[in-house]
Amino acid sequence: VPVSKTHQWLEPGPIVLVTTAGRRAHNIMTMGFHMMVQHDPALIGCVIGPWDFSYNVLRKTKECVIAVPPVSLARTVVDIGNCSGEDVEKFEQFKLTPLQAKTVAAPLVAECLANIECRIEDTRLVNRYNLFVLRVSVLWANRKRLDPRKLHHNGDGTFSVDGRTIDLRERMVKWRELID
Amino acid sequence: VPVSKTHQWLEPGPIVLVTTAGRRAHNIMTMGFHMMVQHDPALIGCVIGPWDFSYNVLRKTKECVIAVPPVSLARTVVDIGNCSGEDVEKFEQFKLTPLQAKTVAAPLVAECLANIECRIEDTRLVNRYNLFVLRVSVLWANRKRLDPRKLHHNGDGTFSVDGRTIDLRERMVKWRELID
Repeated sequence: VPVSKTHQWLEPGPIVLVTTAGRRAHNIMTMGFHMMVQHDPALIGCVIGPWDFSYNVLRKTKECVIAVPPVSLARTVVDIGNCSGEDVEKFEQFKLTPLQAKTVAAPLVAECLANIECRIEDTRLVNRYNLFVLRVSVLWANRKRLDPRKLHHNGDGTFSVDGRTIDLRERMVKWRELID
Repeated sequence: VPVSKTHQWLEPGPIVLVTTAGRRAHNIMTMGFHMMVQHDPALIGCVIGPWDFSYNVLRKTKECVIAVPPVSLARTVVDIGNCSGEDVEKFEQFKLTPLQAKTVAAPLVAECLANIECRIEDTRLVNRYNLFVLRVSVLWANRKRLDPRKLHHNGDGTFSVDGRTIDLRERMVKWRELID
């Protein structure tokens, strides 16, 4: 899928998973603080801090994969966010399937709706805010017929699941280039 | 409402409105590129560019209000994003009610679920990415019985409306302080 479609996955604000390639094993964490920064070339902003086991790996390897989980992974997403890669081999523990990415060593997650391969673009706000700017190199959309509903973290352990869709494309008179 | 609850409004990734206090009139725009950067003190990252009429006002006044619209405002949210404050007095045009904020000159939006008063905290990534870091000074939650469902922009003029809620608070063993 063209990298310029990345915002269609992240602008709706789903909870996501982030994988990195550690020395001993793959790491995977849950992340709620992220946004699109630019449509094309696609840039992403996100917050990953020293309290995350993935933080040092990300700083060192300068790459990661952001994966968008379907509603069926709700419990897994919470459990991944509530243990540490320091103690657990999470891909094994949570029966997730790592797949080889194209441009980064971090793995894709086979069970997710989309996988976004990223490299660090800018670290100027990392020391102060743990805010990374990432550049998307490859975007994968899962062809399997997964339930396409995404999860939105309400910040307190409850999640809103995507409900109905409202189509207002005909009113996008100024931003027509965003419509497929 | 305590400022430390801001993430409960923004982490789920709703489309939002942003108001600023212009010289002639209030401005209001639609924004989809934003995230939480820090829980407490609450910091927000967002992208507002020179293509937005509000950009210069925000840089000059250094303050804004981020408002979270309910599903009932879906058409208004799209229409606000598809015209410019250069041509239209949007509060009038879209029959929105500006209310006096507490710490900023930008107005609250009476019809929204929550209003977040913000001041610019950091502009170091503005020149390169139009990325502002904002600090929340006051958080308002609307007491009227509005439909609480939020809108999530799929990036193409379609929106996902909040559906059912999944409660996984009991699994938040590591992040207990986030649970009310």
